[in-house]
Amino acid sequence: MAASNGLGSFEETSNDDIKSFFDSSPPLKDAAEIKRKLEEFIQKKSFLGKVVLVTSGGTTVPLEQRCVRYIDNFSSGSRGAASAEYFLKAGYAVVFLYREGTYQPFCRSLPNNPLLECFEVTSESNITARPLYEKTVKEAISNTHVAASNGTLLKLPFTTIFEYLQNLQLISSSMSSLGSSALFYLAAAVSDFYVPWESMAVHKIQSSSGPLDMRLAQVPKMLSVLRKDWAPKAFCISFKLETDMKILLEKAGTALKKYNMDMVVANELLTRKEEVVVVTKGGNIVVQRDTTRADADVEEPLIKLIVDKHSAYLS
Amino acid sequence: MAASNGLGSFEETSNDDIKSFFDSSPPLKDAAEIKRKLEEFIQKKSFLGKVVLVTSGGTTVPLEQRCVRYIDNFSSGSRGAASAEYFLKAGYAVVFLYREGTYQPFCRSLPNNPLLECFEVTSESNITARPLYEKTVKEAISNTHVAASNGTLLKLPFTTIFEYLQNLQLISSSMSSLGSSALFYLAAAVSDFYVPWESMAVHKIQSSSGPLDMRLAQVPKMLSVLRKDWAPKAFCISFKLETDMKILLEKAGTALKKYNMDMVVANELLTRKEEVVVVTKGGNIVVQRDTTRADADVEEPLIKLIVDKHSAYLS
Repeated sequence: MAASNGLGSFEETSNDDIKSFFDSSPPLKDAAEIKRKLEEFIQKKSFLGKVVLVTSGGTTVPLEQRCVRYIDNFSSGSRGAASAEYFLKAGYAVVFLYREGTYQPFCRSLPNNPLLECFEVTSESNITARPLYEKTVKEAISNTHVAASNGTLLKLPFTTIFEYLQNLQLISSSMSSLGSSALFYLAAAVSDFYVPWESMAVHKIQSSSGPLDMRLAQVPKMLSVLRKDWAPKAFCISFKLETDMKILLEKAGTALKKYNMDMVVANELLTRKEEVVVVTKGGNIVVQRDTTRADADVEEPLIKLIVDKHSAYLS
Repeated sequence: MAASNGLGSFEETSNDDIKSFFDSSPPLKDAAEIKRKLEEFIQKKSFLGKVVLVTSGGTTVPLEQRCVRYIDNFSSGSRGAASAEYFLKAGYAVVFLYREGTYQPFCRSLPNNPLLECFEVTSESNITARPLYEKTVKEAISNTHVAASNGTLLKLPFTTIFEYLQNLQLISSSMSSLGSSALFYLAAAVSDFYVPWESMAVHKIQSSSGPLDMRLAQVPKMLSVLRKDWAPKAFCISFKLETDMKILLEKAGTALKKYNMDMVVANELLTRKEEVVVVTKGGNIVVQRDTTRADADVEEPLIKLIVDKHSAYLS
């Protein structure tokens, strides 16, 4: 239960750990269909240019097989959704692997309950957007339809840690054919700890008269195997989120070396919408949002920096 | 971490336990404003008739004070949202205490991502509903506006177990002035276990090289105190959700007696959209949805039964 990139600690993960994690996971629904969609998407894009995987939102760890209770990571998916928009604008094809129910590209600026807040029915019984939301709503609808009709955005949902990692493996393997044109932007908040499926209670855990003691196992570190085996030539960016700045930069630096990432984006929980620190082998780069524009976000300069670095990496 | 009504086990809860829970909780934001809204709502309704509190969605248990990780209960809020609609149609004023982000009354039949799926921009740059969704969308918007303009629906959001129980106390105390005209319909999935705020880590829990051991304390059972002290004359309905039918009926029966509920609605996880068992002192009543209509739901006959029983209780 954590918000890193499945990094967790810096213990070495063996191939056996990873095999055993996947072997004991409940099978991914529609795996064949997802694979088919991915192949089609990547084949279409592979001769046009660059493809990025953006992961977004938090994974859950079920505590029961017939799931009533689970451990979740806080993540609205707003960073992933914003980043996907800027990658699309920069000409990338985007595979958007997102937590069910979190923010989607082009919908971030809408209120939480868009239907109720944004619309009204006129006296002629037509639907219309309320004046306050009209511009935002129209842009959201239009941009979404453009991405859909261009076929440059493939959205794949997940909920549990099992679904996330199974999808990540499928996508990485498909994207490895793109070599260094593939970009991994792993912004999802992935659980560090989980309950292995075979040791999980089938029915709801009964509350007893005392306190509840739980023991959670570590999720194997998939970043190593992604880097080494799944997509060895890709440009890889992982994320770190911490609430303590000192721990944050230390852990980001360690992750960069340990997992041989091209960049680690370091986020401090309270200031992450204003600035992030991009940790690279060449040093740290502070990226800040343009404070002269009220609606400017930090993802705009961040994606610009990444696109430049990826281009340099390609040439 | 559970999905009951904060019942958990059937240990007696002392007033000290409850006082200590509230004393150690982080203060509820906007408590004064919520109280003011409630008083205004109840005063307006008190001479018109019956008021129901519908609680909906699951509570979270934060694992860190600057919350990155939390334990959550599975609940879409679809039962609560549907029930609120039928109570409104039956002439009740509804206080809807819901988990942020879950289903809202009159929006259940819309797809998850309503904006993208339901709308399009016409060539004249007007917004229009896609034909498939037009009827549903118009009804959703109209019904919502009717409830808003009648002032019969007061929506209050929560996320954590602390916010839920603090709101429950505020609302019960305000509604106690209505005597037996007040109805409590406690459908929310409330955590049984939590981490007391003062013993919670301030910063994000660091993953270490071994497994993670956690000890969770029991949430005090608020149903007793609601029944005895907060709103002693109200008609009270609590919910039980289990994945095992035998355990379910046993626990529902015990809760009915132990907490002196007027009804306990027993839900089995897999069949709960088809049927529920209403456990009362006079025996069990099986309530099933009308299977001759595709869009019929189990909440329709359930709320009809409750409204009848509440009327009998009043006279």
